[in-house]
Amino acid sequence: MALRQSNMDGMMADMQFRPDLDTASDIPLYRQLGDYVQRLIAGGDLRPGDRLPPTRELAGQIGLNRTTVSAAYEWLESEGLIQGAVGRGSFVLGNSLRPPGAAREIDWSRSLTPSMFPSSGSPASNVIDFSSSRPSEQLFPLEEFRECCAEVLSHPRLQSLLQLGSPLGHAPLRAWLLARSRQQNVAGDDDDILITNGCQQAVDILRRALTQPGTRVAIEEPVYPGLRNLFLDAGAELIGVPVGDEGMDLIALRKALDAGAKVVVVTPSFQNPTGATIPAAARAALIAMTRSSGAVVIENDIYSDLVYAGGNLPRLKSLDRNVILLGSFSKIAFPGIRVGWIVAPKPVIARAAELKQLTDLHTDQLSQAFLLHFAESGRLARHESIVIAAGREKLRAVESACEKHLGMCRYSVPDGGMNMWIDLPAGMDAVALRGLARQAGVDYLPGRYFSVSRSLDGGLRLSFAGLTPADIRRGIAILGGVIDNAATSREDASRPTLAFV
Amino acid sequence: MALRQSNMDGMMADMQFRPDLDTASDIPLYRQLGDYVQRLIAGGDLRPGDRLPPTRELAGQIGLNRTTVSAAYEWLESEGLIQGAVGRGSFVLGNSLRPPGAAREIDWSRSLTPSMFPSSGSPASNVIDFSSSRPSEQLFPLEEFRECCAEVLSHPRLQSLLQLGSPLGHAPLRAWLLARSRQQNVAGDDDDILITNGCQQAVDILRRALTQPGTRVAIEEPVYPGLRNLFLDAGAELIGVPVGDEGMDLIALRKALDAGAKVVVVTPSFQNPTGATIPAAARAALIAMTRSSGAVVIENDIYSDLVYAGGNLPRLKSLDRNVILLGSFSKIAFPGIRVGWIVAPKPVIARAAELKQLTDLHTDQLSQAFLLHFAESGRLARHESIVIAAGREKLRAVESACEKHLGMCRYSVPDGGMNMWIDLPAGMDAVALRGLARQAGVDYLPGRYFSVSRSLDGGLRLSFAGLTPADIRRGIAILGGVIDNAATSREDASRPTLAFV
Repeated sequence: MALRQSNMDGMMADMQFRPDLDTASDIPLYRQLGDYVQRLIAGGDLRPGDRLPPTRELAGQIGLNRTTVSAAYEWLESEGLIQGAVGRGSFVLGNSLRPPGAAREIDWSRSLTPSMFPSSGSPASNVIDFSSSRPSEQLFPLEEFRECCAEVLSHPRLQSLLQLGSPLGHAPLRAWLLARSRQQNVAGDDDDILITNGCQQAVDILRRALTQPGTRVAIEEPVYPGLRNLFLDAGAELIGVPVGDEGMDLIALRKALDAGAKVVVVTPSFQNPTGATIPAAARAALIAMTRSSGAVVIENDIYSDLVYAGGNLPRLKSLDRNVILLGSFSKIAFPGIRVGWIVAPKPVIARAAELKQLTDLHTDQLSQAFLLHFAESGRLARHESIVIAAGREKLRAVESACEKHLGMCRYSVPDGGMNMWIDLPAGMDAVALRGLARQAGVDYLPGRYFSVSRSLDGGLRLSFAGLTPADIRRGIAILGGVIDNAATSREDASRPTLAFV
Repeated sequence: MALRQSNMDGMMADMQFRPDLDTASDIPLYRQLGDYVQRLIAGGDLRPGDRLPPTRELAGQIGLNRTTVSAAYEWLESEGLIQGAVGRGSFVLGNSLRPPGAAREIDWSRSLTPSMFPSSGSPASNVIDFSSSRPSEQLFPLEEFRECCAEVLSHPRLQSLLQLGSPLGHAPLRAWLLARSRQQNVAGDDDDILITNGCQQAVDILRRALTQPGTRVAIEEPVYPGLRNLFLDAGAELIGVPVGDEGMDLIALRKALDAGAKVVVVTPSFQNPTGATIPAAARAALIAMTRSSGAVVIENDIYSDLVYAGGNLPRLKSLDRNVILLGSFSKIAFPGIRVGWIVAPKPVIARAAELKQLTDLHTDQLSQAFLLHFAESGRLARHESIVIAAGREKLRAVESACEKHLGMCRYSVPDGGMNMWIDLPAGMDAVALRGLARQAGVDYLPGRYFSVSRSLDGGLRLSFAGLTPADIRRGIAILGGVIDNAATSREDASRPTLAFV
């Protein structure tokens, strides 16, 4: 029973074969017919994919023996011009005598959208690696996590977890996070929540929900490259707002808003890469500015629980309900499990859920259930206190080592998070220095990877959260030595040399 | 130690306060000063986020007692115009006397990119539901899956699974899939593999890698809406190629290529929603066409293992190495676990990996490890044979029920997959009929949700894979009754009524 007419029917309906055959010629008839068909192909009358009539039909049509037509098709097939299909006739493969394997290959450099991002290079091995902003896997509570997973897996709910889920996320996880957000005063009655594959996807989805090519977006500078590249790739016009000790420079932010920035992406606490935190008063000032301009604020809140010193500050979302807040378990718990979320006014979540469905239907359900149970059962809070205690140790190591070894640099030790920024002595280049540092046994990411429009070659990011206090001390000592050496050899080079004296 | 100058310094550097104060007035000085500042705010000389000088400083500057300045600030704060911050002066909140809570709210309908997709409506409850293309959760091998997870979780490798991973995917899973793809002749030496969050994300990533706004993309019609909407949302220009019993109409595809289609997305086996499969000869013809035009082919291969009748057909990727193949475990195993993949020439995978990193860093590592172990340990193959045996039963139920109850319709029973297409009797509307069907206890998706540019209101999709044979039989019987009734009442309505005779 046919839904519609078959593909292969009618393909040749309008084509009449009228070969001018010479029975008196030395050239056999099958070959004359084959040459005729080859000319039809070469001339574009027959094109790749076109069907030739079945041999019986063509034989009748042009008054030849069917064997002759079959021989012609066989010759054409041996030349790679056509391909036979039992019972369906044959069809044209290519338009020249090249074998099909040698047919036109795609020039991927023309077919693919261009890449615009320099790689930060492979991480060096066998060095103390300050280049990656990630938690220490030595702290992962593997036994607790195993128990937690076993509890989730043994539950009858497992069946529904393995079935297709909601774009919004696993309902019990959403409910738990929304309740916690309400306690933290970052969700009101008009807010809703969407689960994403970590915070990176949250930004990608919001980028689609809030920008079009040419939309002006204010971001921090230096900035996390994954954030910058996402907006750049989508054709947004980026305005870099310099970050100082106290986060975004508000005068520059005002200018960005006056220049038409419609979206502001900001990490108020322990910004990556600088570690800077915006003080309470400046948070309120920032909100006053964005509120008066009507710009949408995306608050990247993934580091704010990692407070090693000092107290908590109000989240921007608690100062203005229009703010869109991004959270994640990745910085406290397990970055390999991709679960993050967006808390935002309901219209934003409705559009974001639509985009989430377009992107990948929904976030992995099993991972959502694991992390919910890890949190609900109190294991997350226990782990968090261990991570924070360890972070305090790391921070002390950073502080004393910097004081001891980085006397030539400018830096500011943060109160939490995973990263800090080092300004090298004037004129020193962090990219050039990196080669020396790697040779000496330490790695970091040079400032230029975090640049939006300014040169940041004199700075670098130290990511300390993944290292032990001992490695932090040893690594910063090595780095300090490399910097001192570079400064000394520069001084030597600039001194007049008295050769042969 | 300051990285750069603090935000809060210098904010007011250029602003001079010159209030015209009248000591003889009845209006107290603090209030005169307050009114003056209010006028500066209302006139735009001071803007939200601007800092006022500390009271002591301003008092000195304008020759007033500090208490008076403090009283003026307090009055301004009580009016909601400014906010104080201990030790840092105060700053401007808003530019009118509205309390800050009532400040300008964002009009989300203007800030959000527009949604362009009609919802397919909530699934009806308590009906036999043919509306969702998903496997039956009753078949999920929960005990086998639990064992499999326990084995993965107990492995010391768990620690690295919980850490940040590669955008390309979990290396052992990639190696396993690449080896299998080579066995299936769908990967050569020039191919590589990228793990995605299911097939939907694979399409999203390739859409970014291969199209820009305005790029012409040929897709099947009817088509899976998640695919159509993804390209539409990105501004591609879609060309719908009608799908018949034997898949894409090749004459229409030729026209689409001639019209400049640069990308062709095709599901050669058990297409969603029609269930159509392209025969071997037409596959070769399709490849001959796309090869000669230089268009990129994306082969959606997620259903091809679900063969209940007939044999396997060559994948397009085995006919042309330029083809990009999409695979997934979701249709065989567990759709709630989001793991799919792309097999493609290396330059495509390199660009796709960059985009994957921008999108969400990488796919959940634990889920990748679970599915790898499920496959490697032979459990996937065992489960697959159970799914296929069950599918065969379902297909038989579909076939006999359709023959018995859908005599008025045109349809074609597929040889596998999850879906089939029904053309209703001429003039009958699937959207209108759906209301009646739901009342009668059966649901489906009307054809219009699968449309690209043609009206498909006379057709509908039946997704049978999630149902038991008994429910399939019962559901199709109900549907057939609803269709017969609708046809009869239409005939009655068109007959002249002889009232009161």
